[in-house]
Amino acid sequence: MALEDQLVALPNPHPGRDYRVRCETPEFTCVCPRTGQPDFATVTINYVPGPSIVELKSLKLYLWAYRDVGAFHEDVTNRFLDDLVRAISPKTMTITTDWLVRGGIHTVVEVSHP
Amino acid sequence: MALEDQLVALPNPHPGRDYRVRCETPEFTCVCPRTGQPDFATVTINYVPGPSIVELKSLKLYLWAYRDVGAFHEDVTNRFLDDLVRAISPKTMTITTDWLVRGGIHTVVEVSHP
Amino acid sequence: MALEDQLVALPNPHPGRDYRVRCETPEFTCVCPRTGQPDFATVTINYVPGPSIVELKSLKLYLWAYRDVGAFHEDVTNRFLDDLVRAISPKTMTITTDWLVRGGIHTVVEVSHP
Amino acid sequence: MALEDQLVALPNPHPGRDYRVRCETPEFTCVCPRTGQPDFATVTINYVPGPSIVELKSLKLYLWAYRDVGAFHEDVTNRFLDDLVRAISPKTMTITTDWLVRGGIHTVVEVSHP
Amino acid sequence: MALEDQLVALPNPHPGRDYRVRCETPEFTCVCPRTGQPDFATVTINYVPGPSIVELKSLKLYLWAYRDVGAFHEDVTNRFLDDLVRAISPKTMTITTDWLVRGGIHTVVEVSHP
Amino acid sequence: MALEDQLVALPNPHPGRDYRVRCETPEFTCVCPRTGQPDFATVTINYVPGPSIVELKSLKLYLWAYRDVGAFHEDVTNRFLDDLVRAISPKTMTITTDWLVRGGIHTVVEVSHP
Amino acid sequence: MALEDQLVALPNPHPGRDYRVRCETPEFTCVCPRTGQPDFATVTINYVPGPSIVELKSLKLYLWAYRDVGAFHEDVTNRFLDDLVRAISPKTMTITTDWLVRGGIHTVVEVSHP
Amino acid sequence: MALEDQLVALPNPHPGRDYRVRCETPEFTCVCPRTGQPDFATVTINYVPGPSIVELKSLKLYLWAYRDVGAFHEDVTNRFLDDLVRAISPKTMTITTDWLVRGGIHTVVEVSHP
Amino acid sequence: MALEDQLVALPNPHPGRDYRVRCETPEFTCVCPRTGQPDFATVTINYVPGPSIVELKSLKLYLWAYRDVGAFHEDVTNRFLDDLVRAISPKTMTITTDWLVRGGIHTVVEVSHP
Amino acid sequence: MALEDQLVALPNPHPGRDYRVRCETPEFTCVCPRTGQPDFATVTINYVPGPSIVELKSLKLYLWAYRDVGAFHEDVTNRFLDDLVRAISPKTMTITTDWLVRGGIHTVVEVSHP
Repeated sequence: MALEDQLVALPNPHPGRDYRVRCETPEFTCVCPRTGQPDFATVTINYVPGPSIVELKSLKLYLWAYRDVGAFHEDVTNRFLDDLVRAISPKTMTITTDWLVRGGIHTVVEVSHP
Repeated sequence: MALEDQLVALPNPHPGRDYRVRCETPEFTCVCPRTGQPDFATVTINYVPGPSIVELKSLKLYLWAYRDVGAFHEDVTNRFLDDLVRAISPKTMTITTDWLVRGGIHTVVEVSHP
Repeated sequence: MALEDQLVALPNPHPGRDYRVRCETPEFTCVCPRTGQPDFATVTINYVPGPSIVELKSLKLYLWAYRDVGAFHEDVTNRFLDDLVRAISPKTMTITTDWLVRGGIHTVVEVSHP
Repeated sequence: MALEDQLVALPNPHPGRDYRVRCETPEFTCVCPRTGQPDFATVTINYVPGPSIVELKSLKLYLWAYRDVGAFHEDVTNRFLDDLVRAISPKTMTITTDWLVRGGIHTVVEVSHP
Repeated sequence: MALEDQLVALPNPHPGRDYRVRCETPEFTCVCPRTGQPDFATVTINYVPGPSIVELKSLKLYLWAYRDVGAFHEDVTNRFLDDLVRAISPKTMTITTDWLVRGGIHTVVEVSHP
Repeated sequence: MALEDQLVALPNPHPGRDYRVRCETPEFTCVCPRTGQPDFATVTINYVPGPSIVELKSLKLYLWAYRDVGAFHEDVTNRFLDDLVRAISPKTMTITTDWLVRGGIHTVVEVSHP
Repeated sequence: MALEDQLVALPNPHPGRDYRVRCETPEFTCVCPRTGQPDFATVTINYVPGPSIVELKSLKLYLWAYRDVGAFHEDVTNRFLDDLVRAISPKTMTITTDWLVRGGIHTVVEVSHP
Repeated sequence: MALEDQLVALPNPHPGRDYRVRCETPEFTCVCPRTGQPDFATVTINYVPGPSIVELKSLKLYLWAYRDVGAFHEDVTNRFLDDLVRAISPKTMTITTDWLVRGGIHTVVEVSHP
Repeated sequence: MALEDQLVALPNPHPGRDYRVRCETPEFTCVCPRTGQPDFATVTINYVPGPSIVELKSLKLYLWAYRDVGAFHEDVTNRFLDDLVRAISPKTMTITTDWLVRGGIHTVVEVSHP
Repeated sequence: MALEDQLVALPNPHPGRDYRVRCETPEFTCVCPRTGQPDFATVTINYVPGPSIVELKSLKLYLWAYRDVGAFHEDVTNRFLDDLVRAISPKTMTITTDWLVRGGIHTVVEVSHP
């Protein structure tokens, strides 16, 4: 199963109104494609739902599925956005990944749709 | 008695001027409709009064009345807004619910009127 | 002497320029008109002076004068604004009152002129 | 089923060594026996295991079981200690309950065994 | 009624065990005997109950009763201890008063029994 | 030597680009003109350089020179701005002074050019 | 290779004096043996070296090696201590693991030698 | 008048009981004897009164009197202790001075009696 | 090799979308050209990538290369921006340098492109 | 000149009394002997003076002198202690070095005399 197929869309209970949902988890880890060493990040998903909201348990499973995947900081953040936009078609969405220090440098990536 | 009938409107003592009231409580709990387990949230109500302000004790009772109610995060936040708008007709109102961690994910929902 | 007569206006030493003054005190207490019990608040006054600035000692005495006065949160904040606008005619002014918890609810009121 | 029967003891995986376990949750609520209103507390359990450790899911269910129980601050904290000592026979145990503000007063109760 | 007569003792529900109760409130105000100006303090009461515990509402009323009383920092803290020891005969008790700044100086007084 | 003559202007090393410099020091003290007592403030200078930047050691000496000068909060903040604008002709500049508590009131003054 | 064989001991450069080394990392993850879901912890190692100190890169690799290992909170903390004591024979050592929330409960385990 | 003659002793209102008084002020400044530049410190005085307590206004004036005095960090802290012990004969007293950064180094001096 | 030749550009993996990357390190040190003494700063680079992103290891080496370079605060911040803009042609970029205290003054410089 | 010859001892102005001096600086950098890359630490020196105190400017120069020296965390901390004990013969002294993250691990070393 492709990673993005983990994401489950639920019908938005209040589609007639714009509102904002923010989900944040410090429990993301993947693998650096260059060095093979684990990387750790806090992932934040901030969106205005369109027809759907994301089911939280499926979001958890989707993020866990990256545990053994090689992923660059900038690339994986864009990929989260692509997958979530495809899954739930939000009106707007911002993904932020905040990575633990590597080489003395603390990196944050923020990607928005549209 | 319906939940929203708990809310008591008092006349706005300064209806000729736009001003802002923010009420915040960490004492909200309801039940997850899927699992039956309790959920906990901090609820913030931020509004510019129209003809009325909300009576604080009635607000407390209104929020307590959800103690045994099954309620999804996104849904209950919208419902707070609907009930409070109906009760006191504010010029603008924003409701924020900030939920304790479930499945490693911390969720915040923010809904505004109009 | 009426409460607002405590406030002393000093000439603005730089009337030709817009600048901002913020005065904040955690030492405000009044009495709840319903229950007779004391309430406590931090009061913040943020303004751009017009012809006058407020003399700090008179501001302290003005706020102390509410010690035995019955006052609702929303009402007393508007009254501060009315009294200070009358006393020093600021170009803009915002009053914020941040009240200690009552019934599990933390309340903040913010009123602006004009 | 009595409340304390919710607690499940697991065999201590390292019974030959004294070590310390601390479990903390902000998700405790019960009811004030005098007023019927909900109370909220953060509960901390800090112990040196004897023959058993407490199973975490059963601890969660045990604390949830107080949701509709009338309980004074001092009393319920002692009761937690009695039930947990009976369930897992720790070498030492301290229970702390840290209650949200009531009547402007923030209360903490701490009980130890032996 | 003398101030200390406000304090109500309840029977200790677990007299056979030493445990600790801490009550803290930022809502104390009295009057400076020299200047007549209000003083503000956070009061903390930390005790091991003997035969009795202090009833919280009576503690609130006791502290409120100082609102118009002239009281020096060191003196009033000792008086709290004397009154509470007389009312509930604790095994040990420590009172701390933490006063808002006067003359640029922040003062804390801590008194213990026995 | 007049106070403002302490300030030394250095040529802006990158005059072709707008950028921002912020200098902050908690080491400012002057004297209250009414009471003769010392006042203490944190001073922040935030500017976009024009032809010059301010030399830091001269800024330190300039602020020290107020040690025995009588100065009201609002007045001295405006005077800092006047002197610095005259000395280095910034494109924009904001001065903030944040004063230690007097009479229970914490005061902040913020002045901008142009 | 067994997990504990990852740990490399370096000669203590100052064996004649007792001193303290503390190493802390938020980058630990393993798998819950019951549910198969990832767990995350901050690991702290605090020791007084005997003949050896632990080489930091080998410590990092040792902790990474648990990424796919099923491990209960209490058990894995004791195992860290056993492996490190075997590898570097410290005079004293304390291991603390501080786990992200599961089921609303935050758990910390602390194990010491001797 | 010598500096230490500023200090006024008041009779201890509760001489029969040991209790603790802590006075803290961020408003201390003196002059570096080597460079002539101002130094700034937060001064904390923590004592168990004997026959006397220190009058707060006199303490403020005593500390202000150092404004133009040349004083090394270690020396002035000992001098505070000598003067206060002479003035009020405390049972125990600790003076702490916490100095703003000089040469990139933050210094704290702590002196105790007896 | 010139300092700026250390910077390595990698192809932007998502050139069709504007997103933001922030890299922050507290590990920058250079030398004051006037006094020869070391200076220390936290450097933050915040940009929207154009055709390239900066390779993190090369960024680390680039910043290390300033270790023995004499550099004024305002100048070196502009130079970082010039070098990074030349190396990776970002759509927008802001560099912030936050310097440890010198002469009691804390300085921050912020430069943006375009 | 050997590194430790930078340290200058001044006569203790109050040799008849035990007191405590703490000096802390975030401005230490040296070089990793294995990798040649810079390391950064906050250094804290906490001592009870004997016949001498350390002159602060010489301490600053002593720490700067390590800028190009290869030094392991544990070793350099012991070396600081040896050099300072030799220079000023303190009654007791503790040196703490708190190092920025390397390989995801934050290390602190603490060495005491005697």
